[in-house]
Amino acid sequence: MIKVGIVGGTGYTGVELLRLLAQHPQVQLRAITSRKEAGMPVADMFPSLRGRVELAFSEPQQAPLTECDVVFFATPHGVAMAQAEELLAAGVKIIDLAADFRLQDTGSFEHWYGMAHSCPQVLKEAVYGLPEINRAHIKAARVIGNPGCYPTTVQLGLLPLIENGKKLIDTQHLIADAKSGVSGAGRKAEIGTLFSEASDNFKAYGVKGHRHHPEIVQELRQVAGHDDIGLTFVPHLVPMIRGMLTTLYARILPAARDTDFQQLFANRYANEPFVDVMPAGSLPDTRSVRAANTLRIAVHRPQGGEQLVILVVQDNLVKGAAGQAVQNMNLMFGLEETLGLTQIPVLP
Amino acid sequence: MIKVGIVGGTGYTGVELLRLLAQHPQVQLRAITSRKEAGMPVADMFPSLRGRVELAFSEPQQAPLTECDVVFFATPHGVAMAQAEELLAAGVKIIDLAADFRLQDTGSFEHWYGMAHSCPQVLKEAVYGLPEINRAHIKAARVIGNPGCYPTTVQLGLLPLIENGKKLIDTQHLIADAKSGVSGAGRKAEIGTLFSEASDNFKAYGVKGHRHHPEIVQELRQVAGHDDIGLTFVPHLVPMIRGMLTTLYARILPAARDTDFQQLFANRYANEPFVDVMPAGSLPDTRSVRAANTLRIAVHRPQGGEQLVILVVQDNLVKGAAGQAVQNMNLMFGLEETLGLTQIPVLP
Amino acid sequence: MIKVGIVGGTGYTGVELLRLLAQHPQVQLRAITSRKEAGMPVADMFPSLRGRVELAFSEPQQAPLTECDVVFFATPHGVAMAQAEELLAAGVKIIDLAADFRLQDTGSFEHWYGMAHSCPQVLKEAVYGLPEINRAHIKAARVIGNPGCYPTTVQLGLLPLIENGKKLIDTQHLIADAKSGVSGAGRKAEIGTLFSEASDNFKAYGVKGHRHHPEIVQELRQVAGHDDIGLTFVPHLVPMIRGMLTTLYARILPAARDTDFQQLFANRYANEPFVDVMPAGSLPDTRSVRAANTLRIAVHRPQGGEQLVILVVQDNLVKGAAGQAVQNMNLMFGLEETLGLTQIPVLP
Amino acid sequence: MIKVGIVGGTGYTGVELLRLLAQHPQVQLRAITSRKEAGMPVADMFPSLRGRVELAFSEPQQAPLTECDVVFFATPHGVAMAQAEELLAAGVKIIDLAADFRLQDTGSFEHWYGMAHSCPQVLKEAVYGLPEINRAHIKAARVIGNPGCYPTTVQLGLLPLIENGKKLIDTQHLIADAKSGVSGAGRKAEIGTLFSEASDNFKAYGVKGHRHHPEIVQELRQVAGHDDIGLTFVPHLVPMIRGMLTTLYARILPAARDTDFQQLFANRYANEPFVDVMPAGSLPDTRSVRAANTLRIAVHRPQGGEQLVILVVQDNLVKGAAGQAVQNMNLMFGLEETLGLTQIPVLP
Repeated sequence: MIKVGIVGGTGYTGVELLRLLAQHPQVQLRAITSRKEAGMPVADMFPSLRGRVELAFSEPQQAPLTECDVVFFATPHGVAMAQAEELLAAGVKIIDLAADFRLQDTGSFEHWYGMAHSCPQVLKEAVYGLPEINRAHIKAARVIGNPGCYPTTVQLGLLPLIENGKKLIDTQHLIADAKSGVSGAGRKAEIGTLFSEASDNFKAYGVKGHRHHPEIVQELRQVAGHDDIGLTFVPHLVPMIRGMLTTLYARILPAARDTDFQQLFANRYANEPFVDVMPAGSLPDTRSVRAANTLRIAVHRPQGGEQLVILVVQDNLVKGAAGQAVQNMNLMFGLEETLGLTQIPVLP
Repeated sequence: MIKVGIVGGTGYTGVELLRLLAQHPQVQLRAITSRKEAGMPVADMFPSLRGRVELAFSEPQQAPLTECDVVFFATPHGVAMAQAEELLAAGVKIIDLAADFRLQDTGSFEHWYGMAHSCPQVLKEAVYGLPEINRAHIKAARVIGNPGCYPTTVQLGLLPLIENGKKLIDTQHLIADAKSGVSGAGRKAEIGTLFSEASDNFKAYGVKGHRHHPEIVQELRQVAGHDDIGLTFVPHLVPMIRGMLTTLYARILPAARDTDFQQLFANRYANEPFVDVMPAGSLPDTRSVRAANTLRIAVHRPQGGEQLVILVVQDNLVKGAAGQAVQNMNLMFGLEETLGLTQIPVLP
Repeated sequence: MIKVGIVGGTGYTGVELLRLLAQHPQVQLRAITSRKEAGMPVADMFPSLRGRVELAFSEPQQAPLTECDVVFFATPHGVAMAQAEELLAAGVKIIDLAADFRLQDTGSFEHWYGMAHSCPQVLKEAVYGLPEINRAHIKAARVIGNPGCYPTTVQLGLLPLIENGKKLIDTQHLIADAKSGVSGAGRKAEIGTLFSEASDNFKAYGVKGHRHHPEIVQELRQVAGHDDIGLTFVPHLVPMIRGMLTTLYARILPAARDTDFQQLFANRYANEPFVDVMPAGSLPDTRSVRAANTLRIAVHRPQGGEQLVILVVQDNLVKGAAGQAVQNMNLMFGLEETLGLTQIPVLP
Repeated sequence: MIKVGIVGGTGYTGVELLRLLAQHPQVQLRAITSRKEAGMPVADMFPSLRGRVELAFSEPQQAPLTECDVVFFATPHGVAMAQAEELLAAGVKIIDLAADFRLQDTGSFEHWYGMAHSCPQVLKEAVYGLPEINRAHIKAARVIGNPGCYPTTVQLGLLPLIENGKKLIDTQHLIADAKSGVSGAGRKAEIGTLFSEASDNFKAYGVKGHRHHPEIVQELRQVAGHDDIGLTFVPHLVPMIRGMLTTLYARILPAARDTDFQQLFANRYANEPFVDVMPAGSLPDTRSVRAANTLRIAVHRPQGGEQLVILVVQDNLVKGAAGQAVQNMNLMFGLEETLGLTQIPVLP
C-alpha cells in the first residue's frame, strides 16, 4: 500500500483527490492538512465522504507527511516549493497540482504568479506530468508538476499535429478557444463565481493574458522541437460545475492537404488508456467524461477546407487535475496506469 | 419628480431597485451610496445599466440624502435605524428593505438579528409595507419596513383564510415549505452560494429557526386578530437565480368543509393589481413572474380532502423586495400604485 | 458471473443501470433491447460508455433474454408484465423498475396507470424491493417490483416512526413535500422538461394526485400494521439533473413527547449499508449522494415543538431506481449487498 | 396605432414578440395564429402574459391578417414565403423571423433548408433587416428578412473591420467561435435540448456546416464589397436559457498594425442606439443584455499582437430575433427606432 498525504484538502481538487484515492486499491490515506480547518473531520466538510474517509484535517506541521510515500499538493501556488526539499530529503515523492513545478523559466513564473521561485534546484529535476508525452520521465521522477487543466486539452489536441516537425500545420497562428466549468475557479469565497453571477451567464476572461499561456507554449515548443509556436488563447466561463471543452483552430499547410488527420490522431493515441479519439464527425460533450479520467478528441475539417477544428473535452477536475495526478502516481510507483481510475462517466 | 436616494446599492436588491427606478417615469435618482465603492460609476459594476444610470457610488456622508424625498435602504440590517432620525428630521421618507422596521418587539429583533434596536421611537411609527394588508397606513407613513421575501408569500397565501377569525382553518398547525432562488442570499462572497456549491443541488436550511419566522407570525396574528398562530417554516435553496415558491399546508376545520376556497381567494384579491389568483387546478411556476412585481396564487384541495395546499410564487427580488418597495413608494407619494411596475415577466 | 439482460435501455434508468452493471464484478451483460434503436451500439447513444460497454441494442424478440439469470425492465409501465411469465418459465428472475409489480391492488393499478393488469398471478408472488423493509423476502423472490423514487424517500423517512404501532406520531395527517431533479421525468421528448422550460424555474406538479401516492400509502400501511394512514403528497420539479429531497412533516403524539427521535432513527438504521442517519442538526444536500446508492436522513424538531421535520435525500436515479435494483439483484443472488455499489458520491 | 398580426406564436421568438409588442405604446395586437392551439388563450400557454395579452390563438385561415398593417412570422422556415404574396397584395408589410427572405441565392436556400423557394419574386424585393447596415432600405421595405441570431453577432462584430475595403484584416481566414443559450434551439419537443441533456454540459454542434454560414458570408461580402471572405464558424451550446457570445478572431494585416481598433469601433457605432462598444479591456457577459435589445462589443488585441479578438454579446431572443424585428418595424413605420425597446437588462 502506498502511504499518501495531501496538503490542502479543502478545495475542489482536494476533495476530488480524496474521492479518487479513497477508492484506490493500493492507497492508504495517511494525512490531509488544512491550517484553517485543523481538527475537523474531512467528512464534516464534505458529507459525500461520510463513512468513506475517516481522516480529520491536521495542522501542516503536525501531519506525518515525511512518513508518506508521496504527498499531493492541492494548494495555492507557492506552497509546494516551500516544502519540497524537506520532503524529498525524507524520501517522499511530490505531485504538485499547482504551478510551482510547471514552468522551467523562473522569470516567467515570477511574472505570471507574482512570487519568486524559492527552490529552482528542485524545479530542475521536476517532470511535467503529462503521461501521454512524458511517460518515461514520470516513471523515474521524484517531483511532478501536474499540468494545468487548459494546457492538458490544448497539448493533447495539438500533439499529433506538431510532434512531427513543421510539416502539417501553421504553428505560428494557433487558436485555442477554451471553455471551462466554474469549478476551475476553485472553492474560494468570491463574488464573481457566486451562483447568481455565474449561472445563466457566459463570458470570456483572461483575454489579455492567462497563466496557462506560457505553460502551453513551453510544452508545445518542447514537443515540436522548435520555437515557432504562436498561440492565441481565450478562456471562457461556462455555467456548469465540471467540464472543459477546447476548440482548437489550426491551418493546414499546403503540402499537407492530403493528410488523413483522423487516422493521424487515431494512430497516435491508439494505446493511450485515457485518450479517446472519436469517430470522424463526432461532437463530444463534456458530460461524456463527467467524473472520469478520460479525455475525448474529435477531428474536424469543415467542408474539407484548409482549417482544422479539433474539439477536446475532459473533466477539468479529473483528467485536468486530480485524476491526472493519480495517473502520475500510478506511473511513479510502478502500478497499472489505470488503477483506481476506471470509473465510468456519470451521464446524465 | 420624486428625488430618490439609495443607501447601499451594491447588492441584488440595490441593483434591482436601480433597474426599476431608472425606468420609473416619476423618479429622479439623486444618490446611491457605497462606502467601499465610492467613486465608481454604478454602470461599471453593473454593465446592464450602461447608458441608463449615470450616477457613481458616493460616500454615505457626502451623499445628498437629506435633499431627497425618499431614501431606500438596501443595506445589511442595522444601517437604516442608525440614519433614520436624521433623515426624518430633514423631511425625508424612508423605505427600509432590511429588517430594522419589521419587528415591533425589540426583544425579538435583538434575539434574531443579534443587535440592539437603536431607535425604538421610529420603530413605533413604522408601517409594515405589505400593501395588500396595510394600504391605508402605508399612504400615510413616513417610515416603511419593507417585508421579507418569504413573509410576503406566506402572508398573502394565508390572508384570506385567517382574516375572518378562526372559522376556516386550524391556525395552530400551519406549515410553510418554502423554496427560494439563490439571489435571496445576497451578493456576498461566501462559499455556500458559489456556483459550484449551489448548482445542481438542493437543500433545506434554517430548519432550527429562521429570522422570517417571527416576522410572519407577528403579522399573521395581526391579521387574524388573535394569537393562536402556530407555524412550522422550512426554507429551501433552489438552484435558480430568481424566484420563490411557497407551498402552504392548512387543515380545514370541520365546520368549513363546504367553503369554496377558490372563490374566497378570487374575491379577496379581485382588486389587487399585483396578486393573481389563478384558475382552479393551476400550477404556477416561478418563471411566470420573473422580473415582474406579480405574485400568483393557486388554491388546491387534493382529493377534496381536509388539507388545503396553497401554492404561491413571486420573484424574490421584485414583489419580494425591490418591486414591493417601489409599490410602497408609489402609495406614499400618491402616485398610481402600478406606476413603473408594469414590466411583463421574462419567459423563457 | 450473473448473466444480465436489460429490456429498454435508452432511458435514464437504463443508462444508469449500464453504468453500475458494467462496473459490477459479478455481472456479465448479455443483452440490452430497444425496438427503436436495434442495431445501434449502446456507446453510440451514450458516449460515456465508449470502451466500457460493447453491446448493441437488439430487437426484443431476438435478444437472448431467456438465457439470462436476471432481466431488468427499464421500460414504460406495462412492458414487464407482458413478458414476465415467459421469462419466469425459463428460470429467469425479474426486476421491474416500472410500476407493474408495485401495487398489489390491480384496481388501483388500472386507475393510476390506465391499463389493465395482465398477469395478476405473477403480481401475487412479486416482492416490493425495498431492502431496508423486505430484505428476507427479496432474497427469496423471483420477481421484484422496484420502488418508485419518491416512495423510497417517504418510506425510509417515516419507517422508524410508524413501524412500532400508533404510539409516536399522528399517522392520519402526514405531509410529504417532495422535490426531484428533472431526470425523474425520463428521457422523453417533451416540451415541459426542455432546458429552456425547466431551467431557472421551479414549480409543483401532480398536486391533484400522483401515481406514487397509492404506492406509498400501501407500503406505509403494510409497515404500520394498520390502515390509518393519511398522506398529503406534493411533488416539485427542481432545476437540477439528479437528486431528490423530501421534507416530511409529522406531528408527535402527546404521549411521545419525550422520545429521542434522533436515537430512534440511528438505532433503526445502524446496520443499513445505504442509509445514513446524519448527526442532529444536519442539513443534507442532494449532491452529497450524487451518483451513489446512499440515502441520507436528518431528523429535526424545530424549537423542540410537536412537529417533526424529517429531511431525506437520495439520487433519484440510484437509490431511487437503478442502484436499488442492483442492490436487490445482489440480495437475490446471495452476493454481498454492497457489491458494485460502493462509488463515492461526486462532489462538486 | 399599428395593427399587428403574428403567425406562429407558440415558440420562443413568438412569446418574446408578444412580451415586447404588448408593452409597445404604438402597437395594437390583432391576431396570433397557431393551427395546433387554435382557441386557446395565449395567456393559458404562457402565464407570464396573464392580464396583459387577451388574445387567443386562432386558425391561420380565420385570422384577420389582411387587416393588419404588419405581420410577423415566428414560424418554421417555409411558412412566410407561402403567404407573402397574398399579404403584400392586401397592403400588409411582412417581417419574417425565419430564413425565407435572408438568402438571395435560391439555390443556396434550397441546399441549406431542404425546400424550394416558392416566391423568388418577393425575395428579390426583400431587405435584410440589420438596421446598423441597412437602415435606409429597411425604412422603405415591404418585406424584411430578419437576421439570424449568430449572423447578427458576427456581422456587427466584423463590420468596422471590413467595410473599408481590404486594408485592415485578412478576410480570408476569419474565425467565429460562437456560443448560444439553449432557447436558440426553439420550443420543440426534442431529446437533445431536454434539461437533463443540456444542463451541466457543453458541446459544439454544426461543425460540418450550419445554415447561418451562407447567410453570414453573403452579408459580409455585401458589406465588404468583394468576395474574398473565408469564414470558419463553429457554434456551441451553452447551458443557459438566453444569451449569445461570439468570439471573433481576425488577423491584422501588416499595413494596419498601427490602427486604433478601439477607436474604429467606437466611431462606427457612436450613433447606434442598440450597439454598445465597451471600454478597452472589457469582458462583456451575456447577462448584461438579458431580455434587452442591446448588443455589446469589446475589442481585444492580446499582447498587442497581430490577432484581433472581438467579443460580442446579445440576447439571442431580443437583438438576435424578436427585438430586432420590432426595431425593424419601428423603422418601417417611421417611429422612433427605440420605441418599446428600452427595457433595462435583467441582472442578476
